[in-house]
This record gives sequence, structure tokens and C-alpha cells, in this order.
Amino acid sequence: MTLELTFEERLETVADKITLLLDHLIPRAVGPETELFSAMRYAALGSGKRMRPLFVLECGGLFDVSNNRLLRVAAAVECIHTYSLIHDDLPCMDDDDLRRGRPTVHKAYSESLAVLAGDALQTLAFEILAHEDTHPQPAVRLALIEGLAKAAGAQGMVGGQAMDMAAGDAKMEMALVARMQRMKTGALFQFSMEAGAIMAGASTEARYALAGFAHDLGLAFQITDDLLDVEGDSSKTGKAVGKDAEQGKASLIDDLGVDGARERTKMLGEQAKAHLEIFGPSALILHQSVDFVISRSR
Amino acid sequence: MTLELTFEERLETVADKITLLLDHLIPRAVGPETELFSAMRYAALGSGKRMRPLFVLECGGLFDVSNNRLLRVAAAVECIHTYSLIHDDLPCMDDDDLRRGRPTVHKAYSESLAVLAGDALQTLAFEILAHEDTHPQPAVRLALIEGLAKAAGAQGMVGGQAMDMAAGDAKMEMALVARMQRMKTGALFQFSMEAGAIMAGASTEARYALAGFAHDLGLAFQITDDLLDVEGDSSKTGKAVGKDAEQGKASLIDDLGVDGARERTKMLGEQAKAHLEIFGPSALILHQSVDFVISRSR
Repeated sequence: MTLELTFEERLETVADKITLLLDHLIPRAVGPETELFSAMRYAALGSGKRMRPLFVLECGGLFDVSNNRLLRVAAAVECIHTYSLIHDDLPCMDDDDLRRGRPTVHKAYSESLAVLAGDALQTLAFEILAHEDTHPQPAVRLALIEGLAKAAGAQGMVGGQAMDMAAGDAKMEMALVARMQRMKTGALFQFSMEAGAIMAGASTEARYALAGFAHDLGLAFQITDDLLDVEGDSSKTGKAVGKDAEQGKASLIDDLGVDGARERTKMLGEQAKAHLEIFGPSALILHQSVDFVISRSR
Repeated sequence: MTLELTFEERLETVADKITLLLDHLIPRAVGPETELFSAMRYAALGSGKRMRPLFVLECGGLFDVSNNRLLRVAAAVECIHTYSLIHDDLPCMDDDDLRRGRPTVHKAYSESLAVLAGDALQTLAFEILAHEDTHPQPAVRLALIEGLAKAAGAQGMVGGQAMDMAAGDAKMEMALVARMQRMKTGALFQFSMEAGAIMAGASTEARYALAGFAHDLGLAFQITDDLLDVEGDSSKTGKAVGKDAEQGKASLIDDLGVDGARERTKMLGEQAKAHLEIFGPSALILHQSVDFVISRSR
């Protein structure tokens, strides 16, 4: 699909569509709860890269699933991702003032609204998936809900974040850092990449290939994030540089070194691409996504 | 069912069953994420009254739904309720040090773990409902998920909490206070009372009766909460007395006065009981629950 677009153009198209859909899904409430919706919209309609939505759409595009249904799943995933960013930015967590180049939600609104807007975005994710527009078969919607819950919950994203906070200044074993990152970011990436296969009832072979792709690319994505923290340009990343290192946060770069980390992302990228072979030329954008993830500057 | 038990005994039985089920549903993890699970268990297995589970079971008991399925729904509701308490107690929200007579989660653990434990309990609620053990029909599980999401989200519980925080010290119109409380506590109460009817595919008449019961009892419950804040015994309520008033929080007592508020709960209690008439003697415990809610001291 859309083979004529470059990867960046494709990412932009996806981002626009997701923003439009989230604009539709998060009400523009009037009355005393306006501020809550305003905070939800501020966070969710902001200038995110929309990488996860892209993966939902591109991996889903390998199968026979309608674009509108994939978009709803992508919106649900983005609600979860956005809620986690709002909560991660809180003073009691990473204490970040900037996100995507703008004040974080607790800075633009208040801490209490940041907690609540995150809470409500999580709820909205499951409400979106439960709706019949997401897939005509109830059993498929339930499989999506279970998949997203597992990826987002205590044994996935939130569990990884808790491990990250618990480590504090202490140096983590490299194996543990990898596990933490697999939970913290990898699980939601993997769900994004497998959602279309769930919706299409794809073969086990295809599911395995996507899981492998998700594993390798997710890790490459995380290491690149860490590299950007060490040597990125804050005007591009939209957040303070060196912050994680300053807070003594565990990162694979501690063990690999900058050059080793860059080498590792390259290797992971090659592995990720190898998993795509069974899909042939229809995985072109996914191929390009690997290069984008590894070489991105924000 | 269980007509031979007094209301308090019945509530205790339900509380024990729910604690046992939550103990089973929230893993006792080992490894670096132990603390997250420990915080979730601390909050969810604590000494809550388990009023919402009781309503799930008793209202569900009016129809032909198995007890084990109702218990799972009750556990999901309690996960949502518990997560909201953890987040409401945070320093940036109500800033409470005590809950149910014990240190609140952010006091016993940390603020970051309190945020994350709340987040993970919300996710768990939807995971529980999505599982086939909750109901054999996928469409019914989805209806439960949609119902819980609406009750818990921005147009329900979280929206009510945001209105409450937004009001701050300002005096709210009485109609607005009522609306806020209907969202903040009423919506989840109503879902608890209607869940069994959803699972049984009950008649519209029965659904309406339960919605009316939920509306009146929910409001009575909230006013009693406010009365306890004004004149309760902190050794019984397990939280500081006069705290809401001190923080200038809006309450119907501002408008009704203490005597008026007590009068109002009585009236609401009568109305609530009237809604139960169509269910005959099988609603005995629900009848008793009205008296309990109005006369409780904690």
C-alpha cells in the first residue's frame, strides 16, 4: 500500500489521520469538566511521532483488514502511549517540564489534571476497542482488549516503568535493563505490530515473524532513545539532553558505550528486516521504518 | 439468596470472597517488579467495605447469573474503585495520609508507585472482564467493558473527580455538586448494580428499576460520606474528620445543613427501596443495604 510515498511522508499521513480520529474520539466537552477534556486533547492531539499507529497500520496492511478498523486500534494504542507519557512526566516520576517541545501536561494544566487526564485516556483506549466499529466480531475485539491490557499493565508497560523507577541511581545488570525496556516500551510496540494479525486471524508463522520484528525493532528504538538522550539536540528531541544520565537512570549505553550501542542498533535493524522476508515487497514501508528508527534525530 | 444472614454478615462474606479472588488475580510477583505488585495488593487486599462488590452480587442475584461470574465483575469494579482511591489520595489531589485506617499507598510506598499501582489496577479491571471466565458470550463481556469504561472514564468517575478538583475552594451550585457526585461515585455504583442485569439480558423494566435504585442510593451514600466528614469519628472512618470542609470542598451539606442532609438521605432511602418492589422478597439484602448506607458510621 502507498508504495509511492517516502517513509517520512507515510508517517506524516498516518499522524494526520490519527490526530483527526483522536480529535473525533475525545469530546470537546462544555461545562465544568471542560478542563479535563482540554488536558486530554492537549496531550493526545499534540505533535507525537505516531510511530505506534504507523506500525498498527503498516503491519495490519499486510493482511486483509480495513484501514478504518486499524485506525481505531491505532488510536487506542496512542491513548495508552499518551497516558503513559503524561504520568511518566509527573514530578514524582521523571519530572519533565517539556514533552515534544511543549510544556508537559502538569506544567500546562496542573498535577491533579495530569493524573486524571492520563487515567481517562487509559479508560478511553479500552472503550474504543470495545466498540463494534473496531471489528465486527466480538471475540476479535476481546482479543484486542486482552492483548492491549497485557501489553499496558503490570506485566508490561507499567511494570517496566516501575522497574525503571525502582532502580533509581543503582546500576542495573544489562540483562535486567533489556528486560525492563522490553516491558516498558517493547510490549506496546509488539501489540501495535500484532494487532492487525489478530484482527485478520493471521497464521502462526506471520504472528511469529511480527513478534520477532517487534522485539528487535523495539530494542533498537529504545537504544536510539538512549543515544539521543546522551548526544541528541534538545531543539529536535524536544526534551532536555543528558537528563536520564544526570538522574543516574539505567541505560544499555552504560554497558555498550556509545559506539557499541550504535553498532547494536544496526545489528538489531538487520535482524528486524530479516523477519519481514516472508511478507515480500508489501513490507516496504516497514523496511524503511527500521532505517528511520535507527537514524532518527528526535 | 442467603436470607438467613444479617446485612453485616452478608457484607463480610462478600468482602472475604472478593479479597480471596483479588488475591488470586493480582500476582505475587518475584523479581524487580515485586514492589509494584506489592503496592497493588496492599491497596486492593486492604480492609475496604466492599460495598460495590456487594451490589454486583446482590443485584446480580436477582437474575439467573452464576456467582463466580458475578464475583469476577465485582473484582473488576473493585480494581477500578481501588485505583481511584490511590490516585485521589495523592498529594496533588486530596493529599490524604490515611485510608481505611492505614497509611495511603504513596505513604506506605512512594508517590511514583502509587501512580503506577493505580494505573495497573485500572488495566487489570479490563483484563478481568475480557477473560472468558467472566461470561461465555463475548458480546456480554464487551457490554460489561463498555459499561465499566463509561462509568469510570472522563464522562463518569474521573470526570467527576476533575470537577471536584477544579471547584477548589469556590462554592459550587447545589445542582452542580449533585452532578459532580453522580459522576464521581454514582456512575460506578450504577454499573455495579446493573452488571448482573447486563449479564442476564434482563428486561428493560428491571434495568430501569436498578438504575433508579442506583441513582437514589448513590446520592444517599455520598451525602452520608459528607456527613461523616463533618461529624464522623476518625477512629471509625479511618480518615481525618473535617478534612473536606477544611479544604473548602463542595458538599451538599453546605446547602442542606446537617439536619437537612440527614432528612434528605432518609427520603432518598425510601425512594431507593420503592424501586426494589418489582423484585419482591429476593431483594431483602438490598433493602437492608439502604438502611446500612444511611446509618453507617464509617
